[in-house]
Formats: sequence, structure tokens, C-alpha cells
Amino acid sequence: MITRRSFLGGLAAASVARAFRVRGASTLDIPRVDPRALRERLEALSVFGRPPGGAFADGVSRVAYSDADVEGRRYVIGLMKAARLEPRIDPAGNVFGRRAGTEPALPPILFGSHIDSVPSGGNFDGDLGSLSALGAIEAIDAVGARTRHPLEMVVWAHEEGVAFGRALACSRIVAGDFKPADLDEVWNGMRRADAIRKIGGDPDRILDARRTKGSIHCYIELHIEQGGNLEKAAVPIGVVEGIVAIDKYDVTVTGFANHAGTTPMAERQDALLAAAQLTIAVREVVTSEPGRQVGTVGHLEILPNAPNVIPGVARMTIEVRDLSPEKLRRLGDAIRARARDIATTTRTTIELKPASLAPPATASPDVQRAIERAAASLALQTMRLPSGAGHDAQMMAQIAPMGMIFVPSIGGISHSPKELTRWEDCAHGADVLERTVLEMDRSG
Amino acid sequence: MITRRSFLGGLAAASVARAFRVRGASTLDIPRVDPRALRERLEALSVFGRPPGGAFADGVSRVAYSDADVEGRRYVIGLMKAARLEPRIDPAGNVFGRRAGTEPALPPILFGSHIDSVPSGGNFDGDLGSLSALGAIEAIDAVGARTRHPLEMVVWAHEEGVAFGRALACSRIVAGDFKPADLDEVWNGMRRADAIRKIGGDPDRILDARRTKGSIHCYIELHIEQGGNLEKAAVPIGVVEGIVAIDKYDVTVTGFANHAGTTPMAERQDALLAAAQLTIAVREVVTSEPGRQVGTVGHLEILPNAPNVIPGVARMTIEVRDLSPEKLRRLGDAIRARARDIATTTRTTIELKPASLAPPATASPDVQRAIERAAASLALQTMRLPSGAGHDAQMMAQIAPMGMIFVPSIGGISHSPKELTRWEDCAHGADVLERTVLEMDRSG
Repeated sequence: MITRRSFLGGLAAASVARAFRVRGASTLDIPRVDPRALRERLEALSVFGRPPGGAFADGVSRVAYSDADVEGRRYVIGLMKAARLEPRIDPAGNVFGRRAGTEPALPPILFGSHIDSVPSGGNFDGDLGSLSALGAIEAIDAVGARTRHPLEMVVWAHEEGVAFGRALACSRIVAGDFKPADLDEVWNGMRRADAIRKIGGDPDRILDARRTKGSIHCYIELHIEQGGNLEKAAVPIGVVEGIVAIDKYDVTVTGFANHAGTTPMAERQDALLAAAQLTIAVREVVTSEPGRQVGTVGHLEILPNAPNVIPGVARMTIEVRDLSPEKLRRLGDAIRARARDIATTTRTTIELKPASLAPPATASPDVQRAIERAAASLALQTMRLPSGAGHDAQMMAQIAPMGMIFVPSIGGISHSPKELTRWEDCAHGADVLERTVLEMDRSG
Repeated sequence: MITRRSFLGGLAAASVARAFRVRGASTLDIPRVDPRALRERLEALSVFGRPPGGAFADGVSRVAYSDADVEGRRYVIGLMKAARLEPRIDPAGNVFGRRAGTEPALPPILFGSHIDSVPSGGNFDGDLGSLSALGAIEAIDAVGARTRHPLEMVVWAHEEGVAFGRALACSRIVAGDFKPADLDEVWNGMRRADAIRKIGGDPDRILDARRTKGSIHCYIELHIEQGGNLEKAAVPIGVVEGIVAIDKYDVTVTGFANHAGTTPMAERQDALLAAAQLTIAVREVVTSEPGRQVGTVGHLEILPNAPNVIPGVARMTIEVRDLSPEKLRRLGDAIRARARDIATTTRTTIELKPASLAPPATASPDVQRAIERAAASLALQTMRLPSGAGHDAQMMAQIAPMGMIFVPSIGGISHSPKELTRWEDCAHGADVLERTVLEMDRSG
């Protein structure tokens, strides 16, 4: 007789079973996250911030601190209450819910994601990881299983950074990356302190939100890939090796604005021409060696930006991302060299100013292996890959072993109403999250 | 004995002398435009629209219909009154002043320019031609000389097109290029009809501003070159062959906006990358054959224009200028072909929409020769060249033989506070204008 067990690696199955402390349990006994509830909740959450008259497929605008964000959080908090997780909002506005473990001295296993979105975003980015975390605890709870470590789910506030920028994501406050002046930032006429109050945080006690290194057993986050690698490889589960570092440059090209009709071609100092050459050079440099590194010119503005005036100034951003700081340095040097050549031939000056530098966050090898065992126990193929996008996991990596589970994004589309992940893949991701939690419960 | 006369071509000198109907007059007797008065007036006019606390070298912002424009016009009208030109403002807002000729049945010789400026413009563009026109009449008047044709100077309103666009320059109304709906255009909260009233025009009688073909003997305009050709060739007087045609294209590049961190380089549909390639292609096409043609991408904007998002849309303008419509067609075809290739390789769509097409305005061969004779009588070297910039002369060419005199722009700089023409060259230009008027008085 062929059972599902026959698909599993014996070791993985045995270890997951042990995690339950249920004598003789097989992997068949490990509960699954309810896929129907997961889907229903994703659909219910999508209503908060949905465009008027729209449907699920029309995406969501649930920018952090908006009324839609407050309503979405209220919905999730309600679900957490129903699951007896006694949700609490920390002073930074993050929502935590906890289920006790059998060994009270052990630090909690933390897992979750966020529910805020970019404007015109999709219904999976963040939402899937948040609601799967709840589903995982419920599934474990449903069979009365106990874990050694407390299980703690989290819904991070202000992950997307639409309001106050990624540098002020609320998970940073938990990681201790905070300075009081940040509370005075203003967005849309709203002080950040008031924004935090609006979602139930307490800016007066903001420093209490901090959690120290070692106080969390590990942090695990399920997220959609937001890229097309898993879909293309037809692999349902991605094991994140780390979150890429970002080198960003603010570039100013200075030429000379002059009359578009009277200035001969040979005498122009066209800032846009130089910016165009640099845009192409960035792509050439980034694709000049093998690897998954990416480089983007996403922002460009020119002055005076009139059809009949040769552009005198161009301002642009260059972003280069990779797991390896060494590679980023090499690519940065090559881009700088190309910029020097372009400045000479176009008779412009090009200034590249490093604007921000997100260091890479390496995923814990233990958590990566736990994810692989969890996936194997479900007969799901895995693939290791870097995360090109930033995540709260990046912040958590500073204070705890971190790991991330990716599920495929159809067409690699994200930050768009077209963002889509198959329900089946959502369910797989939630199950792998649950089993990874149980795997990690065995260690430490 | 060597006299100044010995520098002059005998024929030119004789013909100019004849123009005065002064028996036995030599070129020595032809009055010069007062160079000191010209300079003083240019400096006095520069005050209206000067930046607060600035000097002449800080340029001027005398945008049409602004208070500074009204004040500048009042200053010039005062000078015209003092010169007994009985200035009148036509219904379109243009200022005319007239000195009678000996043969009342003959149409007037019209000459002048404008005094409105671009924001942060210079003190020569338009002002030189306007005040030289006045100086020329004064010089002729000073010696009591008579001309057969009436002499008429003009200060055109709204030449730069800052307020309502070049398509609504007030010289167009005189040329008959006007539709009533144009009066309803709004700029800065001001209806165009009210703008015209503000400068003393009468929108209710706007059609009376029209002057018919044949009602003007010829139109002559002195202007700074706004390019660097004369200065580079060290030639003081440019004889304009014509005003170039402008082919303009509004371009929309459509790619696909996606996450800058998670989208592999090979899978991008980057609208900015395509726009950058097209920007470079425009330059390559335009410089691929000899000639004075120019091509410019002056306007570019991308969406969503965020550092961490691959641009999904780029909107840009392409302008190509040349005297030859046939060459413009050829260059346009080549640019279109390059756009097709770029769209294919970047996996974007590129739409080129012809947005406006200013036809070329050919200068009258008679007026060109008159300018050359006038310059020769002053021992000033000349050079024929096209005007890459648009001018009111373009409109006048539709109803009268037209000619333009250029004087050197230092560094070819214009539409900038750095715009500069040597006082000596200003004086030369004014003298050539005066003598061209007299030359043309002989004909027709």
C-alpha cells in the first residue's frame, strides 16, 4: 500500500513527529493548516482598502496608518482573539499573539509578516504570511499538541515604507534601530508619533518595543517570492538564503541647458544624453557577470524638462542588489568608471553619491535546513534563492536566527493588483511554515 | 587720402545714398543708430523683470502679460511717443509706431521684435531688435531724410509663448492665424482675453488686428543668433536664409512596472531603458548626415519614478529641426525605424505621435540681398545661416517678404541670464537694420 508517508524522507518525518512530543505520531498525524479558512481570510482581508466597486482581483491600497490599515488590523486582531492568542499591540504598533510552550524559560519562536500594502498593491504580499502564521498556530492547537517554545505570531506595522520610508519600518524599532527624532517625521500632515497612536501604539513608551538579541529563538516568515524564479522552475517552495544588500546611488548629471533650435549638435552638453548612456551602462555592467544581481534606474528627472530646451541637469537613482557585498563593490566600481567615461565624452559632470546601504541579511543555516525538512515531509520540492526584496526578516536577522519561505508569484508580478499566487501554493506555504516552526521547536 | 568710403562697395554705397533721395549724399552721410542710446535703453528696459537685488547680468523674467511686461511695454511706448511715432496698440496687444513716407499709397516697411522674455531669460533676445527698430527710425529722422514707404516699427506681444504657448503668439493673429476659441485659453488663472486686455489690447475687436497679404512691403527683424555660429566664425552679421521647420513627436514607451529587487534582468520590460536607447538613437540619426539639422529630447518623465520600481512607462518628446522638410521626413523615418528595433529588443511598445509641425519660413531673397548690401556698406562681413529658433518673422513670412539679421551670441547662450552680445555687435546690427530698411525702400 502506498501511503503519503512513502513520499517522505524517513528522518524528516520522524523528527517532525518528535516535535509534537506525541508518542508514536506519524507525519500523517501532523495537522495541516486549513486551506479553506486561509483563502476565506485572505479574501475577507482584501476588502479593507479595495478600490470602490472592485473585486479581489483589483488589488488593494492598504497603506500603513490609513483607515483601511486600521480596519484590516482590527479584522486580524479579531481572528487572533478568537484563536485565544490574547493579541497585544506593542508600543511601536506591531501586533503580537502568543501561545505558551511547555518550557517557560525558552524564548519564543516568532513568525508572521505584515498586512500593510503599497498603493494599488496585491492581496498576497504580507497578508499570506500573516494569516498563515495564525493558521499554523490554530492547526497545532486543534490537535492539542504542545511545543517546548512559546509560539508567537506577529503582524508587523508599516513594512512597505510608503508613509515614512523603509528606514522607519516598525520591525526596526523591535530590533533596536530607532532614534527619538524619528517620531517627529511628518507624512500627509500626520506626525509619526500620532500615526503610531492611530494604530494603537504608544510613542511615549516606544523604547519598550525593543527585543534583545537572544530573546527570540528564531524568526520565520512566509512570503510570496515577488519574482518569477520559482514559477519558472516549477518549484513550490523557495528557501531564502538571505536578503540582498542594496547599494543605492543618488546621481546628478550636470550639463548645460541651451536652446534646442540654435545649439549645434557638436556643442551640446546634454545632461539627458549622459543620463541615458549611464542608464544603459548600469544594465551592461550588472549583466556583465553571471549571478542573480540586479541593477535599476527607477527614478529620473530632468531640468528644465521642456521640449525645446536641451536638458541641463538630470537627477537619477541607481540601485544595485546582491547577497555579496564584495560583488556590489565591484559592480559599483565598474559603474563609476563608466560614469567617468560618459562625463568626458558628453562634456558633463556626473556625481554619484552613495545614498543608503542596506547590508545583506543572511538566513540561518539551521532555519534553512528546517524549512527543507518541513517541505520534504510534505513531498514538496525546494529551491534555495536570495530575496531580492527587503522584508521585516532583515531586521529580525539582527537579533535572532532568521529564515524565510517563499511561494511562487505568477509571472513574478508584485506590488500590483496583478500579484497572484495559486491557492494551492498558498496552502503549501502555510503547511511548510507550520512544520518549520515544529522543526525549530526541537532545537535549542 | 583714405576715407571710410574706400572700404565700401561702390554700388552698395550708391544705392543706399539714393534711398535718401538726397542728391549727392554719400554713405558717410547716412546716419548711424546712436549706439550709446541703444545701450542705455537696453539697460533701462532690463530693470523691468530683473531679479530683486540683481544687476543687468542677472537677466530678466519678463513673461508676457506679467506686471513686468506691462511696465516694460509702457517704457518702450514712452520712447516711441518721444520719437513722435504715435504708438498704437492693436487689438491683439502688439505695439506699432509709424513714420509717414513720401508716397502714401505704398505699403509700410515693418521692422521690430518683442520684449517679453522666458523666465530667467536674457536682456538681448527681442529687446535688441525692438529698441534698434526705434533707433533706426530716430537716426533717419534726425537728418530729416524721407523714405518712399512708411516706416513702421513693431513690438510684438507674447512671442516667447511662456503663457499660452508659441501657437498663440500675437504675431499669428496679425498673420490671420487665429480662432475665437483661443481667447478662452487659461494660464495662471488668467483668461487669454483678459491677458490681452491687461496689455491694452481689445479682444472684442481681435479680428481687426489682421493684416492682409500685400499690405506690408516687407518685414525685417534684427535678433541675436542664440547659437554660436557667428561667434565661432568671427562674423558680425548673419543673414538668415529661413526659419527652420520643427517636427515634434510625443513618444510613449510602455513597458511593465515591476519590483526592482525581485525581477531578474532578463525578464524586465524597462520603459526607461528603451527611452534611453531612443534618446541616444535620436542623436545618432540626426548626426548621421552632414548639415545643420538638430534633434533634441528635452522632455522625459517616467512612471512610477520610484528608485525601487522598474519604470513601466516613459513619456518623452523628440524635436527635429531643419530648413528642409524633405530632410526632416528622412530623419523622422530613420528615428521611427530605430524605435521599432528598440521596442523589439527591450520588449516594450513605443508610440511616436507627431504633435506639431511648424513649416519652414523662407527668407525673401530680396531682403537677404538688401541685408548683404547694407552690411557691405558698413564693411561688415556677413554669413548666411538658418535660424534654428522660431521668431515672429516666421508668422510675417506668411503675409510679406521677410528677412532677419543676426548678431553674434557669446558662447551661443540664450534663454539664460548668461545671454550676451557685445555692445559693438549690437550697434552693428542696428546699423545694418537701418540700412536694410533704406535698401528695401528703394524697391517695390
